Parts: sequence; C-alpha cells; structure tokens
Amino acid sequence: MRDHQQIIFPIIIAFLIVIIIGPIVIPILEKLKMGQSVRGDGPKTHFKKSGTPTMGGIIIAIAVFFSVLITAQWEREMLFILASILGFGFIGLVDDFIKVVMRRSLGLRATHKLAAQVLLAAVLTLYAYRLPGVGSAVLIPFTSQYWDLGVWYLPFTAIIIFVGTVNSVNFTDGLDGLAAGVTMIIMAFLSLVALNAGQKEIAIISAAVTGAALGFLRYNSYPAQIFMGDTGSMALGGAVAAVVVLLRLPLLLPIIGGVYVLETLSIIIQVVSYRLTRKRVFLMAPLHHHYEVKGWEETKVVMLFWIITIVLVLVGVLAIR
Amino acid sequence: MRDHQQIIFPIIIAFLIVIIIGPIVIPILEKLKMGQSVRGDGPKTHFKKSGTPTMGGIIIAIAVFFSVLITAQWEREMLFILASILGFGFIGLVDDFIKVVMRRSLGLRATHKLAAQVLLAAVLTLYAYRLPGVGSAVLIPFTSQYWDLGVWYLPFTAIIIFVGTVNSVNFTDGLDGLAAGVTMIIMAFLSLVALNAGQKEIAIISAAVTGAALGFLRYNSYPAQIFMGDTGSMALGGAVAAVVVLLRLPLLLPIIGGVYVLETLSIIIQVVSYRLTRKRVFLMAPLHHHYEVKGWEETKVVMLFWIITIVLVLVGVLAIR
Repeated sequence: MRDHQQIIFPIIIAFLIVIIIGPIVIPILEKLKMGQSVRGDGPKTHFKKSGTPTMGGIIIAIAVFFSVLITAQWEREMLFILASILGFGFIGLVDDFIKVVMRRSLGLRATHKLAAQVLLAAVLTLYAYRLPGVGSAVLIPFTSQYWDLGVWYLPFTAIIIFVGTVNSVNFTDGLDGLAAGVTMIIMAFLSLVALNAGQKEIAIISAAVTGAALGFLRYNSYPAQIFMGDTGSMALGGAVAAVVVLLRLPLLLPIIGGVYVLETLSIIIQVVSYRLTRKRVFLMAPLHHHYEVKGWEETKVVMLFWIITIVLVLVGVLAIR
Repeated sequence: MRDHQQIIFPIIIAFLIVIIIGPIVIPILEKLKMGQSVRGDGPKTHFKKSGTPTMGGIIIAIAVFFSVLITAQWEREMLFILASILGFGFIGLVDDFIKVVMRRSLGLRATHKLAAQVLLAAVLTLYAYRLPGVGSAVLIPFTSQYWDLGVWYLPFTAIIIFVGTVNSVNFTDGLDGLAAGVTMIIMAFLSLVALNAGQKEIAIISAAVTGAALGFLRYNSYPAQIFMGDTGSMALGGAVAAVVVLLRLPLLLPIIGGVYVLETLSIIIQVVSYRLTRKRVFLMAPLHHHYEVKGWEETKVVMLFWIITIVLVLVGVLAIR
C-alpha cells in the first residue's frame, strides 16, 4: 500500500479543513444573505430549501488550496489544475454573488458567463496543448492507442471538455449531495489513475479535491446545511476537466462522467423536443428532477446517481490498459 | 491500472446480480411476512418502517456466491471466506425466519444464537490457525512487525474477531443503508489490501462482497425497500472477520471497523452505566439511535458514519507498511 500512502494525507488534510472551517464559514454565508432563493424552476418540494445558504464551494476551494500547499511541491501541472479550479470557481462566485447579494436571481447574464468561461477555457487549453506531456493526442478508451486530434484538439478541449464539463457539473448540482458525491467518486478515480501513471502531483491535487468533497458532503448531504452554489459546481467542473486534460483522458470523461452527460443531455433533449414538437420528454429537466417529480425521494435519486458513477469509474478502470 | 482490473469483474457481476434479482426477491420476502415488526426499542420515527420486508441479506449471499463462482478459481482461502459468510448468514437466517415467519419478535434465544456463533467461530479459527499462510501471528498496525499470539490466538480470533464482528455489524444495522454502506467501504479497502499482498482470490471475494453491498444500497438506502436482517448483517460480519483473519490483519479491525466498535461500545457503556448508576450515557443505544433521538435526520447519521469509515480506511492505508 506504500504507493497509495502519498495520496492519503492530501485527502485527509483537505477533509479536515472543510470539517473545521465549515461551522465558521456556513454562518457567514447565511448572514451574507438569508439563503439564496431556490431556482423557481425546481419541483415544489424544494421551496422549503429557500433558507439554505449557498456559495459553499468557497470552502472546497480553500481546502484544496491549503491541502495542496501543505502536501505538495509546486509543479506546472499543479498550477494548471489550481488555475482551472480557482478560475472557474471565481466565475461561479461572481454569478453567485450577483444572485445572492444583489438579489438578481438569474445571476450573471448568460452571455457574459459563457464568454468568461470560453476565455478561461481557451487560455487553459492553449497552455495544456503546449505542455510536452500533453499535446494534441488523447487516449482512445479500451485501447492503448492515442488519437492525435491535431488542431481540432483546441476547440474540442476548450468547448467540450472545459466549458462542457463545468456547465454539466453545474446542471448536476440540484439535489443535496449529488454533485459533491458524484465528483468525489470521479476525482478519487482520477487520483488513482494519476498515481498509477506516475503523475504524483496530479494525484495529490486530485486527492485534495476528493477529500474536500468528502468533507463537504458532511454538511451538504440531505438535509443540506449548505449548497455549493455555482462557485462549487464550476470549481469542481474545472478540477475534473483540468485533470482529464493533463492525463490525456478527455475521451474517458463521457464514461466516468456519465451522470454529468445524462443530466446535460436531458436538458438538451427536453428543450429541443419542446421547441420541435411542443412535447416534453421528461417530466422535468435536468434528469434528477424528473425522478423527483415521478415521486422518488430526493435521497433515492442521489444514491442512484452515486451508484451509477461508482459503476462507471469501475468501467473506467477497465478502459485504461 | 491492469492489476486492479482483476477485481472489477467480481464487483460488477455481484452488483448486477443484486440489481437484477432484487425486484424478484423483494416481493417474495414481502409476502413471506408483510414486513418484520421493527424492534420495539428503536425511536418512534421508525414505526413507519414496520412494512419493510427483511432478510435481504439473502440477496447479498446469492450475489457473492455466484459472482465468485463465475470469476474465481476455488482455493482454500476462498472456501474459508465463503463458509464464514454463508455460515454466519445461515445463523442470521434462522434468527430472521423465527422472527418473521413464526412471529416471535426476538428470534432465536440469545443463548442458542451465541452458542451457534461460537461453535462456527471455533471451527473457522482452528482452520485458519492451521493454514500455512495464517498461523498465530498478526500484524501490528503502523509497523511491519508481526506479533505471535501463540495459543491466545484461538480465543482472541474466535470470540473477539469472529463473534465480536458478526454481532457488531448486527448492532450497526439499524438505519437505512448504514451497515451496507460501512461494510462496503471496509470490504473495498480489504480487497485492495489483498490485491496488493498478491492474495488474488481473497481480493476477488472481497470485491464480490463490495459489489453486492453496492447493489444492495440501491434498494436499502433511505427510504429502504428492504432490510438486510440478521441474515445480511451476520453474513457481512462473517465476510469482514474471515478476510482480516486470512490477511493476518485482525488488529487493524478496530481502526477500519471503528464504526462497528463505537456502536458496540455505546451499548456496553449504556448497559453498564445503567446497571451501576441508573443513569444513561446516551439518549438511546446503539449510537446511531442516540443521534436520531437528538433530532438528526436518519440520512445525516448514515452519512456521518459512512464518512467516518472512509476516513478510517484511509488511516488503514497508512497503517499497512
């Protein structure tokens, strides 16, 4: 187990930071606004949640930052992942801040938010593309072949992987513990993959994100005392995207991140179907609300999506030769 | 990741067996009795649970058995673990059967149940003691030293490890998803430890138990459609005990199984304190009911105990040099 011991401390330290600062930060966020108004488009059972504070992603970001600071050496790869976490987290924070403090319930204008995301994604993608260990080739899952995407690597990585993942995690964040749990499982898997690939620094920062998400679940699981907000979902999306890019595993993301994909597809299908046929495919989108409207308990939906993600990362283990 | 791939199939196959046979077995167990009466000594909020069928451990045992049959070769070690799972599971089944079908709500007489457990534990312990790879030495956690317990190995292993673990998991089984989740995490850890130790067959059967518990959580998580019953908790306890014995890691069990220990200690402390001082230390024992009576949501207690177990197995990784 000696190899695995390197990632234990970053997990435990990030976990402990969240557990310790949670009870300090949560009341502050509670005061900042007496809770964010729950999106008007969720199921009616969610209206009771309007008192829960948001922007909890701040706690995750702080924990990852300090855990990494304590346990790792600074490398380019690590700065890249931290930049993605903190950069996308910052865009989410601005969005949350406008919603919560300025009480404009839709937050940043969609076009402004997307523009900021694309800009950050473009910078990160260009940087990764020029790193010697990354380049434009990506692993084809279930083979040991790499596929060189050439110049197409740039729009693919920036738009699909970075912007797509960040927004997909954001869509997934709608039930207590859902996004935090799913992302924790994925980051734990990626940490082990990085460790096996000899990418110690990537493994450590992935482990820190895993530990922070685990600690966050303590407060975010049903019934949640805090939501992660766009701050959290975008920071976590930034973490997942940056790590798969550095590991040259973006094609693995549709497998291990299957829940993100399903959530996003459900929205696309719902909108397209309604525009074309005036009929809705799902009782409500994203998918987690569909099950809730069907009468499932929130906790049962969350558990299903966690279990699916565990099975998907196990398939992910098989996909890496 | 190639090494890890060996344990993926047993996990996934056991998981799928549970998922597939669950909807067939659950209605049968429902009919067998219209649900077991929930223990009269739990919190009042549990009375609503009196309609939920029990003996769900049967599903876990079937899944483990067939998953192992499909994916592994038969070795002595594997038969030993299977004997422990099925043997203790059978004692639990008899207990459940008397409770459910014969409607004697306390089940087997306590002395008869304990006698059966001790007998099975003694046979298993003697067998393990004589296995060349096991013997009477156990690893001292956080060192690479083994401690030869000599003849004391026999009562220690039979009473503390086998009988103690089986009953501790049984005490832990009192909230939806609690025992299944905690044991899943522990068995996943033990599977990785076995794999790292080159004990492939032990890793495979531990993986099968992990997958079966994961599948069981689909139906057993809050709000549960099925309980594992004594069948399940004793089978899972038998699995954990047998694996730590074969890996010569019984001294690691108080760490990784910290939740089992806390649950059991809470009962002992409660009983001893009440007998001596007529005062109760906990609002209710075992510990999970204490938090419930304090006003925590059931799901929050379960999540706390899962999180504690995840952290404890991470400490377990550090404890193995």
